[in-house]
Amino acid sequence: MGEALGGLRRTMMCGKPRETNVGEKITLMGWVQRNRRLGGLNFIDLRDITGIMQVVFGEEINKEAFVKAQAVRPEYCIAVTGEVVKRQDPNTNMETGLVEIKCESIKILSESETPPIYIKENLDAAESIRLKYRYLDLRRPDMQNIFMIRSKTSKAVRDYLDLNGFLELETPMLTKSTPEGARDYLVPSRNYPGMFYALPQSPQIFKQLLMVSGFDKYYQIVKCFRDEDLRANRQPEFTQIDLEMSFVEADDIMAVNEGLVAHVFKEVINHEIKLPIRRMTFKDAIEKYGSDKPDLRFGMEITNLSEEAKAIDFKVFSDALSNGGSVRALCLKGGASMGRKDIDRLGEFVKTYKAKGLAYIILKDDEIKSPIAKFLKEEEMNAIIAKMGAEKGDIILIVADKDSVVFQSLGALRLELSKKFELVKDKSEFNFCWITEFAQFEYNEEEGRYHAAHHPFTMPMDEDMHLLESDPGSVRSKAYDLVLNGEELGGGSVRIHEADVQERMFRALGFTTEEAYERFGFLLEAFKFGPPPHGGLAFGLDRMVMFLAGTENIKDVIAFPKNQNAYCNLSQAPNVADAKQIEELGLMINTTKEV
Amino acid sequence: MGEALGGLRRTMMCGKPRETNVGEKITLMGWVQRNRRLGGLNFIDLRDITGIMQVVFGEEINKEAFVKAQAVRPEYCIAVTGEVVKRQDPNTNMETGLVEIKCESIKILSESETPPIYIKENLDAAESIRLKYRYLDLRRPDMQNIFMIRSKTSKAVRDYLDLNGFLELETPMLTKSTPEGARDYLVPSRNYPGMFYALPQSPQIFKQLLMVSGFDKYYQIVKCFRDEDLRANRQPEFTQIDLEMSFVEADDIMAVNEGLVAHVFKEVINHEIKLPIRRMTFKDAIEKYGSDKPDLRFGMEITNLSEEAKAIDFKVFSDALSNGGSVRALCLKGGASMGRKDIDRLGEFVKTYKAKGLAYIILKDDEIKSPIAKFLKEEEMNAIIAKMGAEKGDIILIVADKDSVVFQSLGALRLELSKKFELVKDKSEFNFCWITEFAQFEYNEEEGRYHAAHHPFTMPMDEDMHLLESDPGSVRSKAYDLVLNGEELGGGSVRIHEADVQERMFRALGFTTEEAYERFGFLLEAFKFGPPPHGGLAFGLDRMVMFLAGTENIKDVIAFPKNQNAYCNLSQAPNVADAKQIEELGLMINTTKEV
Repeated sequence: MGEALGGLRRTMMCGKPRETNVGEKITLMGWVQRNRRLGGLNFIDLRDITGIMQVVFGEEINKEAFVKAQAVRPEYCIAVTGEVVKRQDPNTNMETGLVEIKCESIKILSESETPPIYIKENLDAAESIRLKYRYLDLRRPDMQNIFMIRSKTSKAVRDYLDLNGFLELETPMLTKSTPEGARDYLVPSRNYPGMFYALPQSPQIFKQLLMVSGFDKYYQIVKCFRDEDLRANRQPEFTQIDLEMSFVEADDIMAVNEGLVAHVFKEVINHEIKLPIRRMTFKDAIEKYGSDKPDLRFGMEITNLSEEAKAIDFKVFSDALSNGGSVRALCLKGGASMGRKDIDRLGEFVKTYKAKGLAYIILKDDEIKSPIAKFLKEEEMNAIIAKMGAEKGDIILIVADKDSVVFQSLGALRLELSKKFELVKDKSEFNFCWITEFAQFEYNEEEGRYHAAHHPFTMPMDEDMHLLESDPGSVRSKAYDLVLNGEELGGGSVRIHEADVQERMFRALGFTTEEAYERFGFLLEAFKFGPPPHGGLAFGLDRMVMFLAGTENIKDVIAFPKNQNAYCNLSQAPNVADAKQIEELGLMINTTKEV
Repeated sequence: MGEALGGLRRTMMCGKPRETNVGEKITLMGWVQRNRRLGGLNFIDLRDITGIMQVVFGEEINKEAFVKAQAVRPEYCIAVTGEVVKRQDPNTNMETGLVEIKCESIKILSESETPPIYIKENLDAAESIRLKYRYLDLRRPDMQNIFMIRSKTSKAVRDYLDLNGFLELETPMLTKSTPEGARDYLVPSRNYPGMFYALPQSPQIFKQLLMVSGFDKYYQIVKCFRDEDLRANRQPEFTQIDLEMSFVEADDIMAVNEGLVAHVFKEVINHEIKLPIRRMTFKDAIEKYGSDKPDLRFGMEITNLSEEAKAIDFKVFSDALSNGGSVRALCLKGGASMGRKDIDRLGEFVKTYKAKGLAYIILKDDEIKSPIAKFLKEEEMNAIIAKMGAEKGDIILIVADKDSVVFQSLGALRLELSKKFELVKDKSEFNFCWITEFAQFEYNEEEGRYHAAHHPFTMPMDEDMHLLESDPGSVRSKAYDLVLNGEELGGGSVRIHEADVQERMFRALGFTTEEAYERFGFLLEAFKFGPPPHGGLAFGLDRMVMFLAGTENIKDVIAFPKNQNAYCNLSQAPNVADAKQIEELGLMINTTKEV
């Protein structure tokens, strides 16, 4: 049952009445948070997206409303009209807590069954229930706040880019499967049975085509799709802030984008980002932090002990060095208090990153404890301690292996220790950094060929152009990532616009011209007609909102997310399709396939 | 081949230099429109998205640049640096026509093959070629202008809705197939082989859920999908401006939306729409214009001659009347000059709308010509002429049939005549009208049941609520369309939020509760928990941009459109998919299906 509005108009939102409104007659509409009986009166807390207002019902105020209010239960949707009065028992925890409404009339707009989850902040309910009843989960004030932040973020992005001359242009959703990259979602075609569209993993090729078209500056906030097994914080559909510019170099693109991020953080959460954002080369990031997305909110850099280890007669060190690897270490301040078990656990931890083990040196107040002490002369031990800047109370953690293993394991260990020992002191800090000069290629040992680290249209650095043929492994590219607190917020590159460079690139990747055309045909075709120098960047909007809203769960920032199996508990998608429609698409269900 | 920018920066756009810039040294970048040799000099017209600038090369100005410029051909992408000087031969047709650049240096950023289409306004090339080389088609100034208009339109929509308290919220693209409506595009699931997501035809259900969640005001500019055979001006993916509001009635929604349209037309093309926009009931629209999207830029309303026809002894008239139909007519001013062939053609035309024929009365200067004159007494003829307000030189065109045929055929005839006789005098006029009080139900004769004319959540008018069971055919709904120059620009409705009304609605549609749940389960489930009164509207963004840009082809306003077979000539989508991937999806291609 429910009543029609019947011409009744809302005159104020629930979170707005203040002492200055005392004496005014207002109409509020919203949901019943609770309905208490106290001293012969009924008190309803009425909630909408702006806040909560206390509404009082009494026989003396209005008998009909008072009687009707008895039947009202949580999450009923109601309209109330009455006078704003001062509260006898002010509640300073509520923004509206100094006033209340004396209710003269009430309409029950709709009733509610008992909701299966509580409509309150910091709900601790099973995810599957929250997702199934997402519309109730989204009634919770903390969730509503997140989506107000998300909406503000999109607006701030658009305002900034519009002001900077970017055009919002839409690229197609039904497009062609991309040959490299993640798995595409396919969409069967009815006009061409047995053929498929693909949903875009990004508008990369189309935005480059828009540059070829002369649109100069493009942006789009756009859905992208990847049919991958979902790790935590991945969703099959996600939203990208995608942009591209012509007649620019990397510095121009980075300047626009740090301006964008600064504008967004200022507008949405009033946080000032100091510009320019610091830059770090990929090489430095790996060597100091063992990661291309270093968390710079704390120090504990990786230190190279290879020089000090040279003379040490310890097989693990000497093997690593003679195989072209290195010996590197972290120094954890105050880590000397760690027990044996904890240290063993860290040893197991680095083994998951293929390190053979973890050597350590504990600087106790009165002694130095280390399983490798017996291999070290006193001056060798002292040299290591000095290089690490270690003091009494610290622990030094050492990995010796080939470089890739050393960096991966120490990089991961550094993050693990920061969690365990809460090395990030200021949780509200936003530590931004550009990572630049990425490697152009990654060598794929299985295939015995180089792959594009970014994508095959990324421009090599001018300084390294001459190495494309002779030493591809050391070519750096004009790619850049924006990293925030150890997470990649966005990334992009300057693209190749010169036909001859593009050809050299394909050769370096081991493609014949024919193969290159097969894979990237329509972009290469377009590049025959005067492509401009161009480049761009894409941010993950979902991740940006996670930072702005202070949540670590991507499902919190997507209104209707899928679960880990890419299933929607609310709508029960995916689901069976009409047999006739499947036939029209020229498809059959493979019933032998295990479901 | 191509040159790198190498640190060179663009300092101005091509369309910007003016006399006030004379003496400045500037760098422009863009595409070569043409390269002429004249009097020992080279003149290059350089184009970017802002306009065209003349650049002069000469041996005296800079020899190296002059030599390099010889090799430059149309659509090469170049950068030029030089001084702005006054033109000896000012060209007042160009905004930059009073000045030119004396080129001191030129970089050829990239070369171009001879483009397969001309880069010029009002191109007359085959659509398939334009779509295949879309990136060149989009270089044409008239196309670039359209997409600047489109971008401005989106921005104006967002600014207005943001200012009016709407949140931009995203709804999912991978969702559940909708049981009524057009054919969905399906997306096979890998996690649930043999199951499918559907791409949304509109975010209707999700936006209603957002209202249940208490988001109060939602909007989104969003891609929607329909796998239908493409008529002219339909695309498989299109963009909707979608919005929904809570605690409102139809007037509130219409007020916000006409404010939106007025803001957009003012911001984008500086056109003032006089508010409020006139309203017309569905019944009036049908009776006067034979259409629920009447073109009101010209009159020529349908006139009911049934009263006049009653006494006339003419079988066609009397049959129509005795079968419950009517006799109605149009009067075309000045139409008496039409020849016999033209009139016969109009007769054929109305037959395509199932009319049995077209009677006519021609008011020549000296006589009245009419095949039905013999059936009419003089006073009967005079009564008809008087009712029609016809004068010498006019023609009266009459259809007698059951009402639906009369309205359809005369409505179509009215539009046909307006084209033929150019009845729309002011081509720049934007004539808006709200159509209201739509029929709630349409009777489906095949199925022998009522269908929802809008959708099954549309609220009936309060005045007609009592007729839901007794006379569903005459129930009017709280639905409204915004019509512009005879096209539907947008439409929406107030939704049902009362459980009991919803149940009555389903009964009227012939659904059991179980069937209703099967079709609309998760929305109905949500409605158990205090849904607010709510309603909304959706505009077709593509169509809105067509009006703002003055084009009648939807492909002109979509950057990368599909052709009539939903095929993309540029990317060659749809295309074959990887056999392994098809298998992972639990599908097989039905090879017996004709391709």
